[in-house]
Amino acid sequence: MNPSPADVLLDLQKVLQERKSAPADKSYAASLYAKGLDTILKKVGEEAAETIIAAKNQDSSALVYEVADLWYHVMVLLADKDIPVTAVTDELARRMGTSGLAEKAARTK
Amino acid sequence: MNPSPADVLLDLQKVLQERKSAPADKSYAASLYAKGLDTILKKVGEEAAETIIAAKNQDSSALVYEVADLWYHVMVLLADKDIPVTAVTDELARRMGTSGLAEKAARTK
Amino acid sequence: MNPSPADVLLDLQKVLQERKSAPADKSYAASLYAKGLDTILKKVGEEAAETIIAAKNQDSSALVYEVADLWYHVMVLLADKDIPVTAVTDELARRMGTSGLAEKAARTK
Amino acid sequence: MNPSPADVLLDLQKVLQERKSAPADKSYAASLYAKGLDTILKKVGEEAAETIIAAKNQDSSALVYEVADLWYHVMVLLADKDIPVTAVTDELARRMGTSGLAEKAARTK
Repeated sequence: MNPSPADVLLDLQKVLQERKSAPADKSYAASLYAKGLDTILKKVGEEAAETIIAAKNQDSSALVYEVADLWYHVMVLLADKDIPVTAVTDELARRMGTSGLAEKAARTK
Repeated sequence: MNPSPADVLLDLQKVLQERKSAPADKSYAASLYAKGLDTILKKVGEEAAETIIAAKNQDSSALVYEVADLWYHVMVLLADKDIPVTAVTDELARRMGTSGLAEKAARTK
Repeated sequence: MNPSPADVLLDLQKVLQERKSAPADKSYAASLYAKGLDTILKKVGEEAAETIIAAKNQDSSALVYEVADLWYHVMVLLADKDIPVTAVTDELARRMGTSGLAEKAARTK
Repeated sequence: MNPSPADVLLDLQKVLQERKSAPADKSYAASLYAKGLDTILKKVGEEAAETIIAAKNQDSSALVYEVADLWYHVMVLLADKDIPVTAVTDELARRMGTSGLAEKAARTK
């Protein structure tokens, strides 16, 4: 049986937090923290572009791979900023309380 | 007590699947499906840019908001392609089996 | 006969500079300056995503349109920052002095 | 005296066209063509993200550098698609014929 999404994101968050005190040459995440916020953000932009490209290629396995890359780097960003992933999922849950176009209005800045 | 990230993502997936058969003028997600893949992908790119901008602004609540926007639109993309969110979290779990720079090598295309 | 790219970019720069002192409700560029840097940058990200999508769609006229949108908003960004377009073209000219993979090495940060 | 923007873009276009028949290991542009459209588009997305980051860092020289990177890769994209740069600048010139918010309406898709 596959792990539920919850477990994975909470587990990943735990791992990424631990790597904040790991040596930069022993972990990819640690190397990102060491390079700093701009490097993490550059990766977020890059993986978003690759997600778009994979989606246009109609290649589901490549798309899963790129979305995982995108979420991974967003999780690194959240860890770097000490923001728990539940802050994001709570916001998503809050929006589901509203629905349809009302939801869009709620999201409009 | 707040719902777990797993529960939120599975609930959101369920809602987004249901909206695939909803009228386009009654739901934001339904309006995105009706406009088609390119509109969904444009939103993914836009929200990635807004995530980067919010992160540079050192504004945690704006960042949470933009990451939620980004994840929401990626979830719409997955629903549009009939890809379950567990495909993505399974891929993340698989990567956590490896670690450190080995993980980066594994991710290198 | 069509204007040269140089003339177009210099003319556009002149127009965009003038609109920095125009009322926000009378000009699209003026409305962007009034909304501020983050709005301009969001448009740059959005138009980059649309350029990628148009290129994948193999639609040359849509691609020309989206690249024009992207360049337009980058020109607004340069004007907002008081950076002349020749600063960018000088940098491109400098790189053409070098060539091939040497050029890539020169560009590597 | 600096070259005019026109000369630079037309010169760059000429160089990039020539490199379409150059060996992939002798030129950065040739290596991009050989890797294909998706690699070129990934670079466009990446440089757009770096442009946003540099603009937020209030670092004008980094911004000039990243905008040059972005324009360079867009020029590679145009060359890959055999689209002349004047197609883009003609579109920009056409838009300058209109002005203000009328221009925005014209650009709205």
